[in-house]
Amino acid sequence: MKENAQEKYLKRKARQAEKALIKEREEAERIALQKKLDERFMRRAITQAKKAAAIGEVPIGCVIVHDGRVIASGYNRRNTDHSTLSHAEITAIKRAARVLGDWRLEDCTIYITLEPCQMCAGAIVQARCPRAVIGAMNPKAGCAGSIIDMFSMKEFNHRVQTERGVLGEQCSELLKKFFEELRAGKAQV
Amino acid sequence: MKENAQEKYLKRKARQAEKALIKEREEAERIALQKKLDERFMRRAITQAKKAAAIGEVPIGCVIVHDGRVIASGYNRRNTDHSTLSHAEITAIKRAARVLGDWRLEDCTIYITLEPCQMCAGAIVQARCPRAVIGAMNPKAGCAGSIIDMFSMKEFNHRVQTERGVLGEQCSELLKKFFEELRAGKAQV
Repeated sequence: MKENAQEKYLKRKARQAEKALIKEREEAERIALQKKLDERFMRRAITQAKKAAAIGEVPIGCVIVHDGRVIASGYNRRNTDHSTLSHAEITAIKRAARVLGDWRLEDCTIYITLEPCQMCAGAIVQARCPRAVIGAMNPKAGCAGSIIDMFSMKEFNHRVQTERGVLGEQCSELLKKFFEELRAGKAQV
Repeated sequence: MKENAQEKYLKRKARQAEKALIKEREEAERIALQKKLDERFMRRAITQAKKAAAIGEVPIGCVIVHDGRVIASGYNRRNTDHSTLSHAEITAIKRAARVLGDWRLEDCTIYITLEPCQMCAGAIVQARCPRAVIGAMNPKAGCAGSIIDMFSMKEFNHRVQTERGVLGEQCSELLKKFFEELRAGKAQV
């Protein structure tokens, strides 16, 4: 009888250990899948950023994802449109709201190749967007962790879960190349 | 000779005093005129806010003044347009940029009936708007002095000279009345 009780105890322990292992594996798979998805959508944002570069604008791109698909995108057109509001994020947020028929971008993830400025970070908070994925950080002007973090301010009524540095190298490289070419162009003038 | 020197000294002093007085008066006149102008343009912003109330939106209005005349206006249409970007300030900034053909709203003053949120305050900074005149403050969510002051942050590359409380009572009253009517309407349901 005593051995039986011990056997039972060991079996229960084994089952518990197995369950914990499965849970751990599932969590690791979930994280790996999320990373893969984030990188996939960041590539879509990079495609948008390249559209900006093609018209001589600072290459910054953005896509908004809802239910696993891109519902809106935007790229920087500030000089082309002569408008402060033509930042990639503002354009994408406007389009996403139109698609969803709601000013609240609930259940959406916003992918941005560069850490947002104060206006765009503010718009993401105002839109109640629950999650943001950022490519390159912007140490001099970024407002999602660099000079301030508007996504985690306790003073605001909404906080944005944030992933930073997704394909960050590629996003940075795009900007670096753009400014190098700009300087080279200017040097020729 | 000695008396003459003293006379000269006294005359000079009198002239200096007179000049200082004139300067002081001019400054007082300038301030009084600016106050009058600010109130006049704030009334225009209040007219915009009333347009919002008329369509059942929180009454917030905005005008942008350049060279002494209103070049753009906007009012809150967030629920009507299903768009986060339909705040009064964003609409007005977009229109002003179109009028000036520049994303920089230099030499402009923005008049807002309510202290701006983080997105709108950010947009005003991004647009390099040099001056903002605010009606009522928004202690729970305002980002131009209440929960933070985005107009005077040393971390940003632009600061906005700010006037607060211009026709503040009237602007507040408009909001108070709107919410009272909203509650009364809800109570009837």
